[in-house]
Amino acid sequence: MPAEQLANVGVIGMAVMGSNLARNLARNGHRVALYNRTTAKTDGVMADHGHEGDFVPSIDLPEFVASLERPRRIILMVKAGPATDATIEAMLPLLDEGDIVVDGGNSLFTDTRRREARLRELGLHFVGAGISGGEVGALEGPSIMPGGSKESYLALGPILESISAKVDGEPCCAYIGTDGAGHFVKMVHNGIEYADMQFIGEAYELLKGLGLSHDEMADVFATWNTGDLDSYLIEITSDVLRKTDPSTGVPLLEVIVDAAGMKGTGTWTVQSALDLGTPVNTIAESVFARAISSSPALRSAAQAALSGPDASITVDDRVAFVDEIRQALWASKVIAYAQGLDEIRMAGEEYGWQIDVGEVAKIWRGGCIIRAKLLERIRSEYAAQNLTTLLEAPSVAEGLADAQEAWRNVIAVAVKAGVPVPGFSAALAHYDQARAPRLNAALTQGLRDYFGAHTYRRVDREGSFHINWSTDGAEIEAVDLH
Amino acid sequence: MPAEQLANVGVIGMAVMGSNLARNLARNGHRVALYNRTTAKTDGVMADHGHEGDFVPSIDLPEFVASLERPRRIILMVKAGPATDATIEAMLPLLDEGDIVVDGGNSLFTDTRRREARLRELGLHFVGAGISGGEVGALEGPSIMPGGSKESYLALGPILESISAKVDGEPCCAYIGTDGAGHFVKMVHNGIEYADMQFIGEAYELLKGLGLSHDEMADVFATWNTGDLDSYLIEITSDVLRKTDPSTGVPLLEVIVDAAGMKGTGTWTVQSALDLGTPVNTIAESVFARAISSSPALRSAAQAALSGPDASITVDDRVAFVDEIRQALWASKVIAYAQGLDEIRMAGEEYGWQIDVGEVAKIWRGGCIIRAKLLERIRSEYAAQNLTTLLEAPSVAEGLADAQEAWRNVIAVAVKAGVPVPGFSAALAHYDQARAPRLNAALTQGLRDYFGAHTYRRVDREGSFHINWSTDGAEIEAVDLH
Repeated sequence: MPAEQLANVGVIGMAVMGSNLARNLARNGHRVALYNRTTAKTDGVMADHGHEGDFVPSIDLPEFVASLERPRRIILMVKAGPATDATIEAMLPLLDEGDIVVDGGNSLFTDTRRREARLRELGLHFVGAGISGGEVGALEGPSIMPGGSKESYLALGPILESISAKVDGEPCCAYIGTDGAGHFVKMVHNGIEYADMQFIGEAYELLKGLGLSHDEMADVFATWNTGDLDSYLIEITSDVLRKTDPSTGVPLLEVIVDAAGMKGTGTWTVQSALDLGTPVNTIAESVFARAISSSPALRSAAQAALSGPDASITVDDRVAFVDEIRQALWASKVIAYAQGLDEIRMAGEEYGWQIDVGEVAKIWRGGCIIRAKLLERIRSEYAAQNLTTLLEAPSVAEGLADAQEAWRNVIAVAVKAGVPVPGFSAALAHYDQARAPRLNAALTQGLRDYFGAHTYRRVDREGSFHINWSTDGAEIEAVDLH
Repeated sequence: MPAEQLANVGVIGMAVMGSNLARNLARNGHRVALYNRTTAKTDGVMADHGHEGDFVPSIDLPEFVASLERPRRIILMVKAGPATDATIEAMLPLLDEGDIVVDGGNSLFTDTRRREARLRELGLHFVGAGISGGEVGALEGPSIMPGGSKESYLALGPILESISAKVDGEPCCAYIGTDGAGHFVKMVHNGIEYADMQFIGEAYELLKGLGLSHDEMADVFATWNTGDLDSYLIEITSDVLRKTDPSTGVPLLEVIVDAAGMKGTGTWTVQSALDLGTPVNTIAESVFARAISSSPALRSAAQAALSGPDASITVDDRVAFVDEIRQALWASKVIAYAQGLDEIRMAGEEYGWQIDVGEVAKIWRGGCIIRAKLLERIRSEYAAQNLTTLLEAPSVAEGLADAQEAWRNVIAVAVKAGVPVPGFSAALAHYDQARAPRLNAALTQGLRDYFGAHTYRRVDREGSFHINWSTDGAEIEAVDLH
C-alpha cells in the first residue's frame, strides 16, 4: 500500500463500542483501519457507515497491520479478559518496535500492568485507556483516561483528544500515568457511578414514600437538574421516571424487575480499595445493594419472615422534606467523589503513578456517565491548592456544613420509616468518622490486645505496649510479642 | 526409633501459637513431635514445658518426620504465606503416601485449595484447619475448623477434637468440607469478629455520648453480659473499659491511640463476599472503620475543615436509652452473623463444599473469639429446619421485630448527634432491604438500560427488554444487544 494511503489509526473489534469509536475517529478526519475476527461484521460497518469517512477495512490481522502507518496506533475494542490476551498474542509477531497497542476495554488494572510489562520488554507500547460514555459517548465524544508511557501519549494523545468530549473547549482526555493508571481511574469512575445511582435510588424511594407519583418525581429530578445536582444521571433519571410502559400504560419503573445487574468494575473498585486500606463505604454499599436485590432466595425468605414499617413517610411539610432529600443526595454524592478520589490518590502512591487528581476531575466533566456540575467545582478546588482529600476543600466543606442538618434528618426519618438508605447512611458515617477527634478504634485496640496480644500505641509516648491482662495487669513495652 | 516410641502427632513452628497447641496436645495424652527451624526455640519450649507431657523434640526435619507414626499427622503452625509454602516443599521428599499435613495458620482459602490439589496429586492429605481462640485458646481449647478429605478427618479428627474447647460435652471441632472449606469458615469467623467489635465500639461511643464514665460503661457491659448479649467479647469489653492506665491513673482507653490495626482476614472476608455477590455490608463497614481510623492524613485534614454536632447525646430517659443501645447492638449482631453464614452457604455452592451451617454455629459456641450465647440459638434453629438465611428463623425474626423500634431510634439519635454508627446503620439497611417487597434496583436497571443498553426484565413476562430511549421510545425484546 502506498504510504499516503496508510491509515493513521486502527480499531480491532467491530461490536457497537468499537464501530462507534471508529466512526468517531473518521468523523474527526482520521483515516481508520478496521478489523474484526468475523469479516461479516466489518462488512456491515462499511455498508452502513462506510460513507461517513475514510475507512480501510481488512479481512485478516496481517492485512490490518500492514495498512497502518508507523508507529502503528491500534485500538483494541474487544471483550476484557482472555479475548484481549488472545488478540494481543496474535498481533505480536506482526508488530514493529515503537508500535502502540491501546486497550480501550474495561480491563482490570492489574491485567493492564501485566500486559504493559510484557509489551515493554518487546519494545512496544501498551496503553490501557479507560473509555466512558457508553455507545453514544464512543460515537459523539467520550471521556478517555489513557495510561502508559509518556512517549506513547505524544503519538497517541492528539488523536484521542480529537475524538473526546469537550468542555469549555478543553478535551475530556488527558494522560493519567504509567501502566495501569488509566484503567484504575476508569474503574473508580465506575465505582462512583454505582454510588451515584444508589443515592438517586434512595432519593427515589423516599419520594415514593412521601406519596409522589412518578410524574411528580420526574418533575422533582428535572428541577434538581437545574441546580447543584446538575448531572447526566439526574437528567436521565427524570426521563426514566416519566417513561410510561408502552404495553401496559403504567410507569415503566413499576414493571421492571427490581434486581440490579453489574459487570464487575464496582466490585473491583471496592476490592482494590480494601487492598489499599482506603475507605469507600459508599461504593461498597452500592455494590451490596445490587447484590441483595439480585438474591431472590434471601429476599423471599426474609420477606416472609421479617416485619417492620411499610416505608411510607409522613412529614409536616412535604415540600421542605423534598428539599432536604436533595441536600442529602448532594452531600452523599460529595462523599462518594471524595472517597473515589482518595482511592486514586492512594493507588498513585502504592503503584508509583503521578496522578493529578484535578486533571481527573477535569476530564470527567464531559463525555462520561458521571459528568456533573460538581466536577467543575472539584477541578477548581484541586487546581487552587494541594488537597489531601476533597473534604477539606473550602467550598466543599461549607456545602457539607450547610447540608448536614437536612442530611441527618432525612436519614433519621428514613430509618424510622423503614426505607433502606445504606448509601446516605454510609456517607454520613464517613463524614462523622473523618471529622471525629476520637474514634472507637481505641476500644478495638484494647480488645485486640486483650485477646490476641496485638499491642497498642499510646497518645503520650512512642512505642508499642501490652497489658498483662491475665496476670498482674501491668503494662509492658513490646517490640514484637509474636 | 522403636515403634512404641513414635509420636502420634507433630507440630512444626514453636512460636507461641505452635508451642501452646503442642502443650495442649501433650496435656491431652498425645505424644507430640516438635520442630522449629531455629533449634533454640524448641529447646526453650522443652526447658519451660517439657515436664508437662510427652514431647519428642527434633533438630531437623528428617529427624522430625522419622519420629512420627504413620500415617503421619503434622500440624504446621508457621506464618501464613511464603513460609508455609517453603516448609511444605522442604517436607515433601520426606513424606509417604497417606501422610497428613495440617496448616493451622490463617491462610487464604485459595492458597489452601492450591496446596491441597498439589499434595493430593502426590498421594498426601492436606488439611486447612482454621484455629480460633488466640494464644490462650490454643493452650486451653480452641475452636477448630478443619477442611480437607473426609478420609484424613478419620485419622486426624479425634486428635483435634480432643484438644478443642467443649460446650455441653461436645467438641468445638467438626469436619467442615473439602480443600479450603475450613480456612474459608475461619476467615468468615474473623469477619464476624470485626463486625462484633465495631458494634461494641459504636455502643461504647453512644454511652460516652450520654456522659457515662468508663466505670459506668464497664458496669453496663457486665450487665449486658448476663443476658442475650452474653459473649466473650462483651465480657472482655467490660474488663477493658474498667482498666486504669498504670502510669497515669486515667482510664486505659483514654491513652490508647485510636487507630485500629488489622491482619487481613476481615479484608479477605469482604473481598470474597464481593466475588460471590453476597452482601456483607456490616463486615465491610467494620473493615472501613478500621481503615479510616488508621488514615492520619485524611483525619487531620477532615478534622480541620469539617463541622458538625459534638457527639454528645441528650435524651429524656437515659436508662431507657441505654437499654435501646443494647437492643440495637443485639439486632446488628444478628445481622452480621446472618451475613457471615450466608457467605458460607454461598461459598459452599460456589466451591462445591457440603457445609452444614448449623455445625459451624455449634463449633463456634466455645473456644473462639466470637463465642456467644447467640450461637446456641443459631445452632438449634439450623438443626430444626433447612434455612436459606438465619433471618427467617422464627426466634431470630421475632427477636428482630421486638428490637427494631429501639434499633431505629438509636440510629436516628446517633445520626443527629454526630456519633458515627456505620455498623448499626448498615445492619438496619440490610434488614430493610431484605424484607422490602420492592427495591430501588428497578430504577438502577432503568438507568443502565438508558445509558448502556443493558436491558431489563419485566415483572409480567419472560425475556430481556430495551427501550429505544433516543429514538422512538418503543420497547424491544432483546437477546443480546452487545
